[in-house]
Amino acid sequence: MKFSSKTLENAVEALATLPSVGRKSALRLALHLIKDSTSKSVKIASALVDLENNINYCQICFNISDANTCEICKEPQRNKELVCVVESVRDVMAIEETTQFNGLYHVLGGVISPMDGVGPGDLTIESLEERAKTGEIKELIMAISPTIEGDTTIYYLSKQMEKYDIEISTIARGVSFGGELEYADELTLGRSIVARVPYSSEH
Amino acid sequence: MKFSSKTLENAVEALATLPSVGRKSALRLALHLIKDSTSKSVKIASALVDLENNINYCQICFNISDANTCEICKEPQRNKELVCVVESVRDVMAIEETTQFNGLYHVLGGVISPMDGVGPGDLTIESLEERAKTGEIKELIMAISPTIEGDTTIYYLSKQMEKYDIEISTIARGVSFGGELEYADELTLGRSIVARVPYSSEH
Repeated sequence: MKFSSKTLENAVEALATLPSVGRKSALRLALHLIKDSTSKSVKIASALVDLENNINYCQICFNISDANTCEICKEPQRNKELVCVVESVRDVMAIEETTQFNGLYHVLGGVISPMDGVGPGDLTIESLEERAKTGEIKELIMAISPTIEGDTTIYYLSKQMEKYDIEISTIARGVSFGGELEYADELTLGRSIVARVPYSSEH
Repeated sequence: MKFSSKTLENAVEALATLPSVGRKSALRLALHLIKDSTSKSVKIASALVDLENNINYCQICFNISDANTCEICKEPQRNKELVCVVESVRDVMAIEETTQFNGLYHVLGGVISPMDGVGPGDLTIESLEERAKTGEIKELIMAISPTIEGDTTIYYLSKQMEKYDIEISTIARGVSFGGELEYADELTLGRSIVARVPYSSEH
């Protein structure tokens, strides 16, 4: 791509560093911003600078938060005996969206993945142990992706938590509600047969 | 979407104002930027502020340019008798990429579209007339999308240019090179039969 302006080229190069934004999309975004008359680019720029400087993590659960303790950890009605362990902030938001969970969270910041150089020390596992030591937690729900890395992480955590009197559970896996069997992937379908549950007419 | 942080929410809202970036994608971008340790967001922010403040248009052809006259208009080897009329800067880049054109450009900044409230006065048509008046231009090549608005614009321009001794041409339309007939859309295929050209073994 040959640019007629260095300013434009810099903007395209910068935008193209975003994930799943190629140089063609970056150019489209940059030209859109140039055409825009509401100083959209300045607004986005200031939000991004803010993101760099002011983002903070909850010191208890490592959710993104403006204060040192996040809104969820602060809420008095929440069940503090139930902690849902997730990989990322996005998972917290997804679970909160369901309004089916009233416990607290613990954001690991990833999963153990030796291939990517991520060991247990890179995650917030030590802080989770600190939380476990207080004796307040009765159950840890592992809401972690069912990948090799995810399963490794769950196994590691379950071993680490053995010395505390904490029940470990994982979220249910199976064919989606409303999903058709023929479209379910083989692994999910296979496992959902192996892990079948007794029929109850109450549900 | 419920956010645990106002800073994060602002960034997502700002990014979601970009075209074809929804709130889910915006969240993914924001979380990527938060995780990034190379202050990518500050770099993007400064490029965007630059884009807002320092972008300039060539006073001759309205291509985006850092100087008052763009590199293309400045180049002495270019054929100044041939001017390619395009809708946007992106078209200039696309044509330059082909290296098949050695003339100058004129960027209209859009097409005449009464439905969108774009009249001839909103485009750079007056400046094109100024260029025509100098008598330097011998041919105007209309490289404008073959839509109703594009055709209207070409018609309007051809009427405006009647009083000058300038040849008007449009770029060739037809089935793409390497394209298979069965995949060409009906309009293109139909028109390419009507506008067939004599066979020449020299090409």
